[in-house]
Amino acid sequence: MKTYLDCIPCFIKQALRVGRISTYDETKIKEILDHTGMLISKIPMQASPPEISKIIYDEIRAITKNFDPYKKIKLENIAKAEELIPHMKKIIASDSNPLFEAARMAIAGNVIDFGIYETVNIEQEIMKSIHEELTINDFDIFVNKLKTAKNILYIGDNSAEALFDKLFIEQIGKPVKFVVRGAPILNDITETEARQIGMNEVAEVISSGTSAPGNVLSDCTSEFLNVLDEADLIISKGQGNYEALSETNYPIFFLLKAKCHVIAEDIDVPVGALLLMQNKKK
Amino acid sequence: MKTYLDCIPCFIKQALRVGRISTYDETKIKEILDHTGMLISKIPMQASPPEISKIIYDEIRAITKNFDPYKKIKLENIAKAEELIPHMKKIIASDSNPLFEAARMAIAGNVIDFGIYETVNIEQEIMKSIHEELTINDFDIFVNKLKTAKNILYIGDNSAEALFDKLFIEQIGKPVKFVVRGAPILNDITETEARQIGMNEVAEVISSGTSAPGNVLSDCTSEFLNVLDEADLIISKGQGNYEALSETNYPIFFLLKAKCHVIAEDIDVPVGALLLMQNKKK
Repeated sequence: MKTYLDCIPCFIKQALRVGRISTYDETKIKEILDHTGMLISKIPMQASPPEISKIIYDEIRAITKNFDPYKKIKLENIAKAEELIPHMKKIIASDSNPLFEAARMAIAGNVIDFGIYETVNIEQEIMKSIHEELTINDFDIFVNKLKTAKNILYIGDNSAEALFDKLFIEQIGKPVKFVVRGAPILNDITETEARQIGMNEVAEVISSGTSAPGNVLSDCTSEFLNVLDEADLIISKGQGNYEALSETNYPIFFLLKAKCHVIAEDIDVPVGALLLMQNKKK
Repeated sequence: MKTYLDCIPCFIKQALRVGRISTYDETKIKEILDHTGMLISKIPMQASPPEISKIIYDEIRAITKNFDPYKKIKLENIAKAEELIPHMKKIIASDSNPLFEAARMAIAGNVIDFGIYETVNIEQEIMKSIHEELTINDFDIFVNKLKTAKNILYIGDNSAEALFDKLFIEQIGKPVKFVVRGAPILNDITETEARQIGMNEVAEVISSGTSAPGNVLSDCTSEFLNVLDEADLIISKGQGNYEALSETNYPIFFLLKAKCHVIAEDIDVPVGALLLMQNKKK
């Protein structure tokens, strides 16, 4: 997805939010906003939002010297999500279509950006989401592709959300490579959190190499790009990965909640829509 | 009120919104965002938000050559507000305390920024607001000051809102000078709209000289500043005027709805609070 004009105020808002999580020094936060402001005129609008965000977050790291500001938040969120898992497992086990139910849970996991909605009743939100209709539902096509798929990639998003991805991967019942970011970025999953939640019990954990908040191909390692080329079924979680990959022609299914109005308009669904959507470019 | 870090993303958002209302040319809108971004590092944080906004809106005018982008919106909003006035007059006339009821209506008028909430049911919102409790209610102090006041100034805000101000001024029953902006800025009231709504029937209309979206003193004419100095009772409507005047020691009563969380925190009230508040500096 290209960067829209509406993304620009949002970059500044995100810079302020991440700046505040990275440091208590107001002068440094102002410096972050100054740098981000000056970046606007240099933004190539054909680049995807996570490509731009990466430049901004690199600046924030350089200014604050805080290389993993979300470390504590990630741990807290993982602990909160872990409490829900036994109940989720029961729901899946008692459903007539456990694969679909688990896919819904993976999408529901994306509903809660624990870092943003701290006051939300997480369990309530998740329970609401798993009963909501998917606005785009390509599950039948997904099941068909899955039957013959030999190289399955699962591109992760937030750290805590990945606990729900584990449930889905268990139901997929085939070897899966789970892709994490190459370095800490926001509350996205890296090898560290993948290890913490035991992702290796259900999948082979590999790194894309990127430290963008989305699977930005120009920032991935050539090793990862080879794996991507060989994949015959790719599951991409969340908005950041959608933004980075929606213009490619990889065999992707995007699982996400369209939380932001720019993405919702890009996909042509209402804000809040839950999606299991085959890549239109494929 | 000084400029807070949270105001900065908001400046960019406003620049985009006003840019879009000023022109359909996406290149010019991007240019507006580029210029606004570069301004961030030059923002004197001790300046009030409308002082900064004025610099941004001057840039937008220079880029788009559109000197009154809200002209049509102002006319439409005035027409919508006019429909409500007969009903409002009946409510005031039948109330045991018509001055207080009219003050509530003036505050209720500030609830609706017609330019922003286009889809809102205006009548419903107004009716809701006039029945809501004021979070800060210095009406009794206001009435006492009013008894002896000889030079009353009423600093207007949005154009359509001023129809509700007229109702309040009628109940004040003393000579009032109604202050308008010196040039078009957003949907704020200028001499043109004051004439359109017949403000001169109830008050003497004078200009502050400023084209900021708030009564920024450094941008007002010396003539107006003299009038301000002589005033023994000042009614200030809306957030922009609060931001510009809250650090002064003029004998002001601020009538507004705290719509933005920064202002709400500055005053120490919840977002959405309705206020009739004496200037704390006085």
